[in-house]
Amino acid sequence: MDEYQNWFQNHWKTIKSKYFEFLRYPSISADKSYKNDVLNCANFLKKILHDGGMTVSLIETKGNPIVYAEDLSAGKDAKTVLIYGHYDVQPVDPLILWETPPFEPHERNGKIYARGASDNKGQIFYAISAILARIAMGKKFPVNVKICIEGEEESHSYGLSEKLPSLKEQFKADSLIICDFDSGSDGSFYLTLGARGCMALEVCLTGSDKDLHSGQLGGLAYNPNRAMVELLTKLWDENGTIQVDGFYDNVVPISAKEIQTLSFDTTKEDLQRDFAINELGNEKDRSLMESNWLRPTVEINGLYGGYSGEGTKTVIPAKCRAKITCRLVLDQDPMHVYQSLETFFKKNAPQGMLIDVKNHGGVGGYRSSLGGPFVAALERAAKEVTKKPIKYVLSGASIPVAAEFAKILDVDVLGIGYGLATDEIHAPNEHFDQARFEKGFLTVIKMFDYL
Amino acid sequence: MDEYQNWFQNHWKTIKSKYFEFLRYPSISADKSYKNDVLNCANFLKKILHDGGMTVSLIETKGNPIVYAEDLSAGKDAKTVLIYGHYDVQPVDPLILWETPPFEPHERNGKIYARGASDNKGQIFYAISAILARIAMGKKFPVNVKICIEGEEESHSYGLSEKLPSLKEQFKADSLIICDFDSGSDGSFYLTLGARGCMALEVCLTGSDKDLHSGQLGGLAYNPNRAMVELLTKLWDENGTIQVDGFYDNVVPISAKEIQTLSFDTTKEDLQRDFAINELGNEKDRSLMESNWLRPTVEINGLYGGYSGEGTKTVIPAKCRAKITCRLVLDQDPMHVYQSLETFFKKNAPQGMLIDVKNHGGVGGYRSSLGGPFVAALERAAKEVTKKPIKYVLSGASIPVAAEFAKILDVDVLGIGYGLATDEIHAPNEHFDQARFEKGFLTVIKMFDYL
Repeated sequence: MDEYQNWFQNHWKTIKSKYFEFLRYPSISADKSYKNDVLNCANFLKKILHDGGMTVSLIETKGNPIVYAEDLSAGKDAKTVLIYGHYDVQPVDPLILWETPPFEPHERNGKIYARGASDNKGQIFYAISAILARIAMGKKFPVNVKICIEGEEESHSYGLSEKLPSLKEQFKADSLIICDFDSGSDGSFYLTLGARGCMALEVCLTGSDKDLHSGQLGGLAYNPNRAMVELLTKLWDENGTIQVDGFYDNVVPISAKEIQTLSFDTTKEDLQRDFAINELGNEKDRSLMESNWLRPTVEINGLYGGYSGEGTKTVIPAKCRAKITCRLVLDQDPMHVYQSLETFFKKNAPQGMLIDVKNHGGVGGYRSSLGGPFVAALERAAKEVTKKPIKYVLSGASIPVAAEFAKILDVDVLGIGYGLATDEIHAPNEHFDQARFEKGFLTVIKMFDYL
Repeated sequence: MDEYQNWFQNHWKTIKSKYFEFLRYPSISADKSYKNDVLNCANFLKKILHDGGMTVSLIETKGNPIVYAEDLSAGKDAKTVLIYGHYDVQPVDPLILWETPPFEPHERNGKIYARGASDNKGQIFYAISAILARIAMGKKFPVNVKICIEGEEESHSYGLSEKLPSLKEQFKADSLIICDFDSGSDGSFYLTLGARGCMALEVCLTGSDKDLHSGQLGGLAYNPNRAMVELLTKLWDENGTIQVDGFYDNVVPISAKEIQTLSFDTTKEDLQRDFAINELGNEKDRSLMESNWLRPTVEINGLYGGYSGEGTKTVIPAKCRAKITCRLVLDQDPMHVYQSLETFFKKNAPQGMLIDVKNHGGVGGYRSSLGGPFVAALERAAKEVTKKPIKYVLSGASIPVAAEFAKILDVDVLGIGYGLATDEIHAPNEHFDQARFEKGFLTVIKMFDYL
C-alpha cells in the first residue's frame, strides 16, 4: 500500500461524509423549482474548495453559477490543467422505481445509491478530493490547477456556453480534463481523446394542401410518402457511402499509426447479444471502429407521414416528414454539411413536391493529440492503479461542451472517469462504489507526481 | 309537364312530410345508444312500404334489421330488379357546427337540411316514393321489384355481409340498383358501373430490440428507417409501374370501345385548383382515367419510425412501420395480391432486418356491363329528366357492399343517384333539395316505362 492509498483509507470516512452531503442536494437543473438547492449545492462546493486551500469564486451565468477554483502556485512558467465537472443532476422520475430515496444516499453491497452518485458528483468529487488531499499532504503541484464545475450540464450548458468566450483568459490551460467518462467493464482505464459532432435537420415534402382519399385520388395524386422514400434512398450507395456532394469535404483521414493506438472493444457479437442487431449498417469497406468513431453518418431519426393508428386508413397524406441527424468528424463544419444536404434534397426532390428543409443546428467534433504531458502522466497513474494497460478511445456520440472547450479555449480535451455503462446514470437507482471512487482518487493524485 | 311531374307536384306535400318523418329518426348505427331509434326507423319504413301495397318483412341480422319489400306481380318470366339503400346515418359531431338540429329537418333556400337528407334517406326515399306512386297510380310493373334497405351501411354492413349468402335466393335479381351515388355538378346524370377493390397490409421492419443512441451506435447499427426507404422505393420503376411479381396478374385490359363509353371529368387543372396537387403520381404512359379507374395502385398510407415530436432526438429506432393499401381492378384477387406483396417484401427485405407483414384484409372490385335492360331504361329516363346525355362512370374508390352483392348474387350493379360532392354528407349541415328529389323520383318511375 503506497502513501496515497494509506491516506485514502485513513480519510475515507471524512471524504464519504462530505460526498454524501454533496449527494443530498437535489440540484436538478432541468426543474426551476430546485433553483435554491442548486445554489446551495454550488455554495457547498465553494466552501469545500475554499476550506481545502484553493482560491474560489462563483462565476455567474444567465443560468446556474459555475464554481471556479484555482491553485496557481506552480507559477507562470509551469503548464496548467483545467479540470471540468458538473454539480447539477438529472431529474429522478419515476420516483417509485427507486429502492431508496434518490437524495438520501445509501450504501448496499459496497455500492452507493443516490442521484448523481456517479454522474457527476461521484466522479468530480474524487478528483476534488485528490487535489485537496495533495494540499493537505503539503505536496506541491508541478502544474497550475484550475477547476470548473458547472451547474447546467444536464440542461444543455446554456450558461457556460454563453459565458465561455469571455472566460478564455481565466480558463486558459494546456489541457482540459473532463471527469465525466466511463472506463472498461474489464477494469481497464479509458482515456477518451475525442468525440464526433452532430448536425440536425428536418425535411418536409408536401404533395397537396390536404389529406386525400386514396380511392378517389389514388393513381392520380403523387403520394409524399412515396416521394420521401424515393428521395431518402438516394442518400446512400450500395456500399453505405453517403452520396451527398460535399458531405465528406474536410473529413481528415486518420493515420494507420493513430488507429493502432486506439482500442475499440465492441464486436459484432456484442451488438447481437446486447441489442439483437443482426446486421450492421456501416460502410462495407470500413472497420467497426472507423464506422463508429472516424466516419460521419446520416441517420433518419424520425420518419412520419399519414396514418399511424390501429388498422387502416385509406389516406394519401398531404405531407411526409423526416428528422435527420448527422454525426460529424474532424474537420467537418456543421453549417457546410447542412448546406450540402439542403442542396442535395432540393436538387433531388421529386418533381411537383414542395420541399422544406429546416436547420436544427449543430456542433463540431473534436480530437485531442496523444502528445501532451498530461496524457503520459495519466497513462502511468492509471496503469499503476488498475494494473492494466490503459486504452485510448474516442466517442461515437457528441459531447457539445467538450467540443466548445476544445474550440474556444484551443486546448486538448482528455476525457477520464471510472463510470460504467451499468451505473444507471439518468435512471432510477443510480450508483457508484467505493472501489472506483478510490481508483479515481488515486489516478488523479498520482498524475501530479508523474508530470 | 308529364303525368309523373304532375303527380309529384300534387303529392309533394305528403311525400315531404313522410320524408321529414324519416329524417327525424336519429338512426345512427355507429352508436349503440341509438339502437331503439334505429329499430323505430326500420319499422317506419316497413309501415310505409306495407301501406303502399308491397309485401314487407324485417330480416334480422346479427346487427340491425334489413327492411325487405317486394312486388312480384310481373311474374316468373319477367326480369327482376333489386333496389338497395340504407336507413342508418352517420354520427352528427360536432353538433355545434349545425345551423339547425340534425334531426329536425329545416328547409332554407330550397335546400332541406338534416343528417341523412342526402345520404341515404333522401336518395332511397325518392326511389321508394316513385315505386309506391306507380302502385298508387295503378300502373303495372314490367319487372319484379325487390327493395333491400339495410341499417348498417355506415358501420361496415356487418349484419348484411354475414347474412348475404343465405339471402341469395330471396334477393335473386338481374340487376342491383344502388341509390347512393352522386351525379355531375353540371346537372348531368352519372351511372356508376363499377368500383375498384381494396387490400390492406402492414409492413414492420425491426433492426434491434430497443431504440438505440444514434451517437453510440451510429455507423454500426442498420437503421430500420433507412432499410424501409430502401425497401419501399423498390415498389415502383421510373414509370410509376409497380415492380411486384404477380401484382398485375388478372388485371383485365379494358377495350378501347369500353373506354370510349366512359366519361372522366377530372383534369390536371382540377387537381391543381382543388387540392394544390402540382404533379401526378400515375404511370406516365397511362391517362388519368386509366390511372384512377382501371389500374391498380399501391399507396403508403402511413409511414412511421422513430421520433416525431418537436426538435430533435438522436435515436436509431428499433422499428419502422408502413401501412399500405392497394386499389384493385378486375379480376385481381385480394389474397393473391397480398401474397405477391408479402413475397416481394420478404424477398427484398434488407439483410438482417426482421420483417413482419400483416394482412388487414381486402375486398374485390366490380364492373357491370352496359348491356343489360336496366341500363338502357335508366339512360332514357335520366336523359328525359336532366335534358342531357347521361355519363357512364366508374369509381376509383371501393364500395365493399356493392362488390359483395356483385360477387355473391352474381348481378350487375348499377350505381345511381343525384347526390353532389357539396351535399356535406358525413359532415355538419348535410342537405339535399326538392329539385334533385324530384329528378330522382322521375328517373326511377320513368325507368319502369322504358323497360
